[in-house]
Amino acid sequence: MTSSAPPRIGIFDSGVGGLTVQRAILARLPGADTLYLGDTARVPYGSKSPETVTQYSLRNARFLDAQGIDLLVVACNTASAVALPALRATLRVPVIGVVEPGARAAAAATTGGRVGVIGTAGTVASGAYQAALQAARPGVTVVARACPLFVPLAEEGWTDPSDEVVRGVALRYLAPLAAEGIDTLVLGCTHYPLLRGAIAAALPGVGLVDSAETVAAEVAARLTVPAGPPGRHRFYVTDAPDRFLAVAGRFLGRPVEGAEHVDV
Amino acid sequence: MTSSAPPRIGIFDSGVGGLTVQRAILARLPGADTLYLGDTARVPYGSKSPETVTQYSLRNARFLDAQGIDLLVVACNTASAVALPALRATLRVPVIGVVEPGARAAAAATTGGRVGVIGTAGTVASGAYQAALQAARPGVTVVARACPLFVPLAEEGWTDPSDEVVRGVALRYLAPLAAEGIDTLVLGCTHYPLLRGAIAAALPGVGLVDSAETVAAEVAARLTVPAGPPGRHRFYVTDAPDRFLAVAGRFLGRPVEGAEHVDV
Repeated sequence: MTSSAPPRIGIFDSGVGGLTVQRAILARLPGADTLYLGDTARVPYGSKSPETVTQYSLRNARFLDAQGIDLLVVACNTASAVALPALRATLRVPVIGVVEPGARAAAAATTGGRVGVIGTAGTVASGAYQAALQAARPGVTVVARACPLFVPLAEEGWTDPSDEVVRGVALRYLAPLAAEGIDTLVLGCTHYPLLRGAIAAALPGVGLVDSAETVAAEVAARLTVPAGPPGRHRFYVTDAPDRFLAVAGRFLGRPVEGAEHVDV
Repeated sequence: MTSSAPPRIGIFDSGVGGLTVQRAILARLPGADTLYLGDTARVPYGSKSPETVTQYSLRNARFLDAQGIDLLVVACNTASAVALPALRATLRVPVIGVVEPGARAAAAATTGGRVGVIGTAGTVASGAYQAALQAARPGVTVVARACPLFVPLAEEGWTDPSDEVVRGVALRYLAPLAAEGIDTLVLGCTHYPLLRGAIAAALPGVGLVDSAETVAAEVAARLTVPAGPPGRHRFYVTDAPDRFLAVAGRFLGRPVEGAEHVDV
């Protein structure tokens, strides 16, 4: 790679949600090349053990690394929560997860020092956000809650805040966080921004933190992208591409024309 | 194996739901030995492509076959819907799925010849129930619908028919089936019997068919179990056993004391 070639960023997620992180990265670094891997054959990670999630994360990372990348973004909260040490020990390139940037953003945003975290069962059970928030702002109070129905709601497209089912599920999960007096909430799963309206309606006055922006800022700080044409983007999936392609454009905010099936 | 040894039945599912099928089998054949494999590292199958589900089903079946079994029960509707031909071509022992028995039971139960089928996206898209119902009762009208939120509802334990979220989701999925005038509904996913009350409330006057009983009858017709002590039961899972063990007893209707982690 010559000094004027654009950097190549590897990004993986358990499925399609990580495209919201890629979208934020491309908004800052439109000239970067990206390789995105969605482990759609094994999705979801959020209900699985740390050992299994780490095993799958290492396979994903080794595949992307073998294609040649300058930096790896783990755009999955569950994998970021449990597999970062193993990934950093294995790869020679920098590895950026979504948990630490999200926690730092929430620590900076909270006014009263009471932060809520919502995510998958695996993310919440790992304690990763809780630890990262304590590191970023010692003494902060963290209230964490798993919200397993939010992902299927988002994938069904049931996201309208005035829909009684959406409102009912959001209130069931979030009323206990409101009762705890949180002032800031981390959306600790890349699907949750699709439910932002319903989440905000259930938590009036609470600031919502989506780590995609903060992750993109960290990626931009680490890479130099020379002036040039828009980057090239390749997409890989471990299940058949059709279902990924049917929704990918909505998550990425631009058309995704093809994805290659790979066995990792 | 001597002629007086009890038969060994292999059973696999993507997760824990197939234990409801095992429960029905053990009610009829308490002396049979069983080997149950839950592919908890790759669950769910219902949102994945036929190729991926077939690949995982073959791995599961080969593992159980290598332990020595006399018959294989595919206790997963999605795997039964897409992988039976490949499984039957690969294994030397009889292979029984849950789709054909469920379809036959519904064909026998329908009074007006209008049958509804609910299941995962994969099961419904496969058309397997639709084809099996046409074969069992030519001219039957079949209305099929995927209900992706039912599995996470059941796993959250949100199953009370008077719960407004449960009622709202059930009505959202099932009101169109009621409008089609179905008189019988196949519960085409092993999790759905846990939501039987809510499903019945949304479809007054409609008969509900759970294939577990019919599958058990077919297994009993194929095997001879000599008089003797209760059978021995082994459980294998592909993810860490703790989450499986936390809920397995509720699905099986008896304690499950241990499960072995295997990589298949």
